[in-house]
Amino acid sequence: MALADTRFSNRRRKLAAELAGQRIDAVLITHLTHVRYLSGFSGSNGGLFLRKDLSAIMATDGRYTTQIAEEVPDLEAILGRAVGPELLKRVEGPLRVAFEADYVSVSQLEALKKAAPEDVVLVPISGVIEKIRLVKDPVELERLEQIAALANEALEGLVAAGEIAVGRTERQIAADLEYRMRQLGSERVSFDTIVASGPNSAKPHHGADDRALESGDLVTIDFGAHLRGFNSDCTRTFAVGEPNEFSREIYDVVLRAQLAGVKAAVPGAKLVDVDAACRDIIEEAGYGEYFVHSTGHGIGLDVHEGPSAAKTGTGELAEGMTLTIEPGIYVPGKGGVRIEDTLIITGGAPKIITAFPKELQIL
Amino acid sequence: MALADTRFSNRRRKLAAELAGQRIDAVLITHLTHVRYLSGFSGSNGGLFLRKDLSAIMATDGRYTTQIAEEVPDLEAILGRAVGPELLKRVEGPLRVAFEADYVSVSQLEALKKAAPEDVVLVPISGVIEKIRLVKDPVELERLEQIAALANEALEGLVAAGEIAVGRTERQIAADLEYRMRQLGSERVSFDTIVASGPNSAKPHHGADDRALESGDLVTIDFGAHLRGFNSDCTRTFAVGEPNEFSREIYDVVLRAQLAGVKAAVPGAKLVDVDAACRDIIEEAGYGEYFVHSTGHGIGLDVHEGPSAAKTGTGELAEGMTLTIEPGIYVPGKGGVRIEDTLIITGGAPKIITAFPKELQIL
Repeated sequence: MALADTRFSNRRRKLAAELAGQRIDAVLITHLTHVRYLSGFSGSNGGLFLRKDLSAIMATDGRYTTQIAEEVPDLEAILGRAVGPELLKRVEGPLRVAFEADYVSVSQLEALKKAAPEDVVLVPISGVIEKIRLVKDPVELERLEQIAALANEALEGLVAAGEIAVGRTERQIAADLEYRMRQLGSERVSFDTIVASGPNSAKPHHGADDRALESGDLVTIDFGAHLRGFNSDCTRTFAVGEPNEFSREIYDVVLRAQLAGVKAAVPGAKLVDVDAACRDIIEEAGYGEYFVHSTGHGIGLDVHEGPSAAKTGTGELAEGMTLTIEPGIYVPGKGGVRIEDTLIITGGAPKIITAFPKELQIL
Repeated sequence: MALADTRFSNRRRKLAAELAGQRIDAVLITHLTHVRYLSGFSGSNGGLFLRKDLSAIMATDGRYTTQIAEEVPDLEAILGRAVGPELLKRVEGPLRVAFEADYVSVSQLEALKKAAPEDVVLVPISGVIEKIRLVKDPVELERLEQIAALANEALEGLVAAGEIAVGRTERQIAADLEYRMRQLGSERVSFDTIVASGPNSAKPHHGADDRALESGDLVTIDFGAHLRGFNSDCTRTFAVGEPNEFSREIYDVVLRAQLAGVKAAVPGAKLVDVDAACRDIIEEAGYGEYFVHSTGHGIGLDVHEGPSAAKTGTGELAEGMTLTIEPGIYVPGKGGVRIEDTLIITGGAPKIITAFPKELQIL
């Protein structure tokens, strides 16, 4: 437990440091992902009240009395259903308390104001914890590698078993892949599995429906597993039967773009440049208008988190960040390709944690 | 399409009627479940701006251009990523516009205020659409029956295949049940499947872990499927091998409580009385302190929605509502039982849509 404690208290220290320059005495954390990130508590109802001096108190309800004591041995926890108000009604003012404006609803803010003593001032903050979460610690990176490896093993099994085949439906393939991840220990999918075949492959946000695979189809599979709070995210596009020339061409372009994106993902690289590394190749090949989304996103406790490799991306990559590189081409009526890796940014070339081969596989 | 259109426009009419007595000229809907409920649009980004005169406009982003035209043929849609601000920046004041205070974050409200013309006043509303959603229409009830039947078929298959057995882990059983639901057409689980065996059955919110079933265990399985927006919810407790006397006793008490709860669920019944019908039997048997949650909840587009059959429940049941009846006894260290049905409230006795038998099955 000692190791875990240090990780969480270090994060609380970072948060306090981020707020040091502002007129804030304490911060109320109610967004569950952030409660987990800053304390280790994984229950479905929890809050954390952290003072500048790093003294902290937690809240949860009666369902989690034992769990919070086990997961957060270093902090006291109070019990109550509405954790934010419960925490605030116990504080003594005068105090300026920051709250998470991106996650607290207008109704919840009203309840917080009602619960807090009159001389407590609530101050909105935004994006502060997200900024701290950008760079992962070794334990986070290890868990992300573990869950990516699990998902990869499931895809390998699916392919080896011949479950991506003419006549099978998208939904059957999604069910098989999910079952394989589940058997390997995944707690749930990290997002709805995409199996987009033939004309459906031209829809970047297609789910998985009752279309049966036909010979000559491209099949894009975008999938993720979830374990102990962490998510994986990987996309591969396969050919079922001999692909036509168009399919081969867009596959080749997307693969070249993807490799260029991976190569560009080094510490100090601007996120707009990582996006451009992919996008330029697709544009030069004449498919720019069919690459309708951004190049990639960070992944961790959320499937989509910072950094963002996009046309509008700001900032630079740094060691310990994660990033997907997932260019795609989607030509309505003709078909599409997306290839996605999840990377860990290292001191040198990025570490690809989604190990499945990227050369076009004809099944 | 005509049928669908009428359902959605009828709901918008009801919403306008609910707001008629208030100084509100229009309402901005951004909570996705409510956007879907009021328009039929099922994409992951959407908004609806509805005026008192029932004229309405929708917003989504470029990914859903085709989908929104298909799903909402009767309303115009504008395109933009931040749907709320996009809708508000187009309106002309003076206007009092209601927004959903329970779902709009403090940051989002700031963005709405910034986008709206100066003479637009934003007015918080809360619980209005939830109130309309309480009573389901025939199409909703049909879909709820359909998804409950699918989940039931999956459980029947699991039992028939002998997959709940000594030596198998909770996680394996959960994976098998989920796979069966998926193969029958479920799009995803409606919540993380619970398989709680032996001592774990005493934890009402246990998930499914690596514990292998042992002879004499009680095994509580709480599971749900999801199809076209609608959810199912059902719990059964099994015995694996011969149960001891304590297990038989608490099973008997919970079953009697559950049957009494079902019997009480008629139109006009107060929700506190439905809760008491269950609770009294458990209390009389001396297990009152071990029934640590409420008796039931409505189900529809959300797994948990109104009405609430609880000690603190308010209001009465009405025809067309849904309700789970799910009493439980959880004795730490000894084991637990929960039995849950989903009901549709009819003119007479409720219709149980979770068909699996409730007598103790020894597997």
